[in-house]
Amino acid sequence: MRGRWETTRTEAFSDGVFAIAITLLVLDLAVPQSELNHFWRAIVHQWPAYLAYATSFITIGGIWLGHHSVFRRLQYANTAVMRANLALLMVVSFLPFPTRLVAEGLSHPESVERGAVIFYGGWLLVIAIVFSALWRVVLRDRELLRPEVTDAEIAAIGRASAPNIGFYAVMTVFALLAPRVAAFGYLVVAIVTVGRVRDDRRSRTSA
Amino acid sequence: MRGRWETTRTEAFSDGVFAIAITLLVLDLAVPQSELNHFWRAIVHQWPAYLAYATSFITIGGIWLGHHSVFRRLQYANTAVMRANLALLMVVSFLPFPTRLVAEGLSHPESVERGAVIFYGGWLLVIAIVFSALWRVVLRDRELLRPEVTDAEIAAIGRASAPNIGFYAVMTVFALLAPRVAAFGYLVVAIVTVGRVRDDRRSRTSA
Amino acid sequence: MRGRWETTRTEAFSDGVFAIAITLLVLDLAVPQSELNHFWRAIVHQWPAYLAYATSFITIGGIWLGHHSVFRRLQYANTAVMRANLALLMVVSFLPFPTRLVAEGLSHPESVERGAVIFYGGWLLVIAIVFSALWRVVLRDRELLRPEVTDAEIAAIGRASAPNIGFYAVMTVFALLAPRVAAFGYLVVAIVTVGRVRDDRRSRTSA
Amino acid sequence: MRGRWETTRTEAFSDGVFAIAITLLVLDLAVPQSELNHFWRAIVHQWPAYLAYATSFITIGGIWLGHHSVFRRLQYANTAVMRANLALLMVVSFLPFPTRLVAEGLSHPESVERGAVIFYGGWLLVIAIVFSALWRVVLRDRELLRPEVTDAEIAAIGRASAPNIGFYAVMTVFALLAPRVAAFGYLVVAIVTVGRVRDDRRSRTSA
Repeated sequence: MRGRWETTRTEAFSDGVFAIAITLLVLDLAVPQSELNHFWRAIVHQWPAYLAYATSFITIGGIWLGHHSVFRRLQYANTAVMRANLALLMVVSFLPFPTRLVAEGLSHPESVERGAVIFYGGWLLVIAIVFSALWRVVLRDRELLRPEVTDAEIAAIGRASAPNIGFYAVMTVFALLAPRVAAFGYLVVAIVTVGRVRDDRRSRTSA
Repeated sequence: MRGRWETTRTEAFSDGVFAIAITLLVLDLAVPQSELNHFWRAIVHQWPAYLAYATSFITIGGIWLGHHSVFRRLQYANTAVMRANLALLMVVSFLPFPTRLVAEGLSHPESVERGAVIFYGGWLLVIAIVFSALWRVVLRDRELLRPEVTDAEIAAIGRASAPNIGFYAVMTVFALLAPRVAAFGYLVVAIVTVGRVRDDRRSRTSA
Repeated sequence: MRGRWETTRTEAFSDGVFAIAITLLVLDLAVPQSELNHFWRAIVHQWPAYLAYATSFITIGGIWLGHHSVFRRLQYANTAVMRANLALLMVVSFLPFPTRLVAEGLSHPESVERGAVIFYGGWLLVIAIVFSALWRVVLRDRELLRPEVTDAEIAAIGRASAPNIGFYAVMTVFALLAPRVAAFGYLVVAIVTVGRVRDDRRSRTSA
Repeated sequence: MRGRWETTRTEAFSDGVFAIAITLLVLDLAVPQSELNHFWRAIVHQWPAYLAYATSFITIGGIWLGHHSVFRRLQYANTAVMRANLALLMVVSFLPFPTRLVAEGLSHPESVERGAVIFYGGWLLVIAIVFSALWRVVLRDRELLRPEVTDAEIAAIGRASAPNIGFYAVMTVFALLAPRVAAFGYLVVAIVTVGRVRDDRRSRTSA
C-alpha cells in the first residue's frame, strides 16, 4: 500500500476542483445595468449565457461521474495516473473561459459566433480526449485495479467514454456551417452522457 | 456494496458545491467608489445586498442540512439518485444569479423590483421542488435506505421538505403586490426552515 | 450515534467554507491599468490591500484552528451546535466584504479610512463573539464531548477564545482616534492568536 | 493520538485551498469586448494569459503533489507544522495576484514586463522556500513521521524540494535581462517538477 499513491486524497482534491469549476460558472451570469429597466426582456435576452451555463455544468457533472467510475475501481494510483489526472483537472478548470466566450459570442455577428462555438466545442473535444487518455493510462497497469473488477466493467467504461470524442469532433466541424445548432448540440451530448451512466448492477446484468 | 454508488464521494462533491455557492455570494457585495466618501450612508444604502446575501446564505444552509438528513440515511445511491442530486446542485449553484438580480433590483423603480423579486422567489420554488423530487427518487427504492431508518423518520423528512414549496408559491404570487414585503418573507422562510430542523433523538421521542 | 448529527460531514462543509473564504481574498488584489507603467511604485502603493489580505487570511486561519480544536473534542453535534456553526460560517464568509472596504478605505481621506477600519474591526468582533457562542452552546450539553476530554482542556479552549473579544472591542474604539494604527493592530491580534495555539500535549503538561 | 493534531482535517482544508487557488486562475482569462470581432486574432493575442495560467496551474499542482508526499508520511502534526502549513497555504493562495500581473505585464512596454516577471518569479521563490521550511519543521521532530518511513525516503523528499529554490533564484536574476525567456523558464521548471515526481516503489528500488 505504501509503495503507491493512495487515491483518497487525490479524489478529494479532484472533487474540490470539479466542484469549484462547476460553481464558478455562475459568476459569468449578469444582466447589464442598462438593460435592467426592461426586466423580463433582459432576462430572456441572456439565453446564450444560460445555454452555455447548462452545457458546461452538465458536461462537468458527466466528467465527474466518469471520474468517480474510474477511481472507485482503483486500489491505488501510480505516478502516471496522478499526472494524467492533473492534466484532466487542468483542462476541466479551463472550461469556464470558453464558456464565457460562447456566451458572449452568441449575441455577436456570425463570424464571432462561429469562432466562439468552434473554440468551445474544440475544448470539449480536448477534455474528452484527456479523460479517455486517463483511462488508458490506468489500463497500462492492471495491478492498479481492484481485484474484483471484471473485464465486462472495464469494457463498459471504455464504451462509455469513447463515443463523445466522435460526437464532439463531428459537432465541431458542423459548427462551421450552423454554429447555433451546434451550440445546442453540445448540450444534447452532455445530457445524453449523463443519461447513459448506469449503476454497476444493471450493467453487470446486461453483460 | 460494489453494485451501487457509494455515497461518500457524492457527499464530498455536494459539500464542495454547497460550500462554494454559499461563499461566492459575498463577491456581489461592494460599495461603489462614488459613494465611498459618505461611508456610513453608503454602507446602509447597501441593505438590499445584505438582505439578499442573508436570505440566500440561510436558504443554502437549510438545503445543506436537508441534504445531510437525506444522505446519512442512505447506504448507497442508485443512478437516479445521482442524477437528481446533480440537478439539485445545478439549481442551487445557479442561485447567486437571482441573488445578484434581487440585490440590484431593490434599488430600482418598482417594475424592476417586482420582476427581480418574482424571479428570485420563483427560483427558490424551483430549488424546493427539486429537493423534494430527490427525496421522492430515494423513496422509490427503499433498499437504498439503511435498515435502521424508521417509517417515522421517513415521514418526518417528507414533512420537513414539503411546506416550503407552498410557502414559496404563495410568497411569489404575493410579490406581485408587494415585492419588498415578499423579499423579507423569503428571509423569514429560510430562518424558519433552519429553525425547524431537529436532531433525530427529539423527533424520535415526539414520534 | 444515530440519534445525533455526526460531525464528519459538518467538518468537511465548514472546511470548504473556510478554505473558500480564505482563498477568495486574493480576488480583490489588483493593480489599476493606469498605474501599471510605474510597476514597482504601483506594487508598493497597494500596501493597504496586502495588509487587509494578510490580516483576514491569518484571522480566518486562526478561526479554523479554533474550530478544529472544538470539533475534534465532539463525538457528535446537536441541532443547536449545527445552527451556531452555520452562524459562524455566515459571519466568516462575509469577511471578504469588510476586507475589501478597508483595503479601499485606507487610500481615502481620513473620514472614509476611519469608517472602514471601524466597520472591519467591528466585524472581527462579531466573528469572535459568534465563535465564543459556539463553544458555549457545546458546553451546555457535556454529553457531546468525547469522554476523554478533561476539564483542563475545556478551560484552555475558553481561555483561548475569550481575550480576542476584548482586544477587538478596545482596538475598534481606538480606531476612532488612529485608524491606521488600529488597522495594524488587527494584524497583530491575528498573528498573536495563531501564535498562542498549542498542541494538546504541551497544554496538558502545563495544566 | 489525542496529544497531537490529527492530519486528516488539515489535509482536507489544505486540499480545499489548493483546489480553489488552482481553479480561480481561470477567472483572469477574458477577451476584451473591443477585440471580440477579430475572434481568432483576439484568442491568440491572449497568449501571455495562457502562459501565466499554465505555469501557475502546474506549479500549484506540483506543490500539491509535494504536500501529499509530506503529509502521507506523518502520523500526526505538531503546532509548528500547523503554522508552517498555514504559511504555505497563504503564499500559495496569493499566487493568483502575481499571475494576473504577469499576464497583463507581458503585453506592456519592457520595463513593466520585466517588473511583472521578476515579481512573479520572486513569489515562486518564496513558495519554494516556505515549502522547504515546512519539510524542515517536520524533520525537527522525527516522532511525527510514521515509523515505516525510511531514511532514503526522507532524503528523496529533501532532494525533490531543494533544487527549485536554486532554479527560481537564477531564473529571477535572468529575468532582468530577458523577461520573456524567463517567463517561459518558469513553465519549464513547473513541468520538470511534476515530471520528476515518482511513486515510492521506484524511488525505493533506486535507493
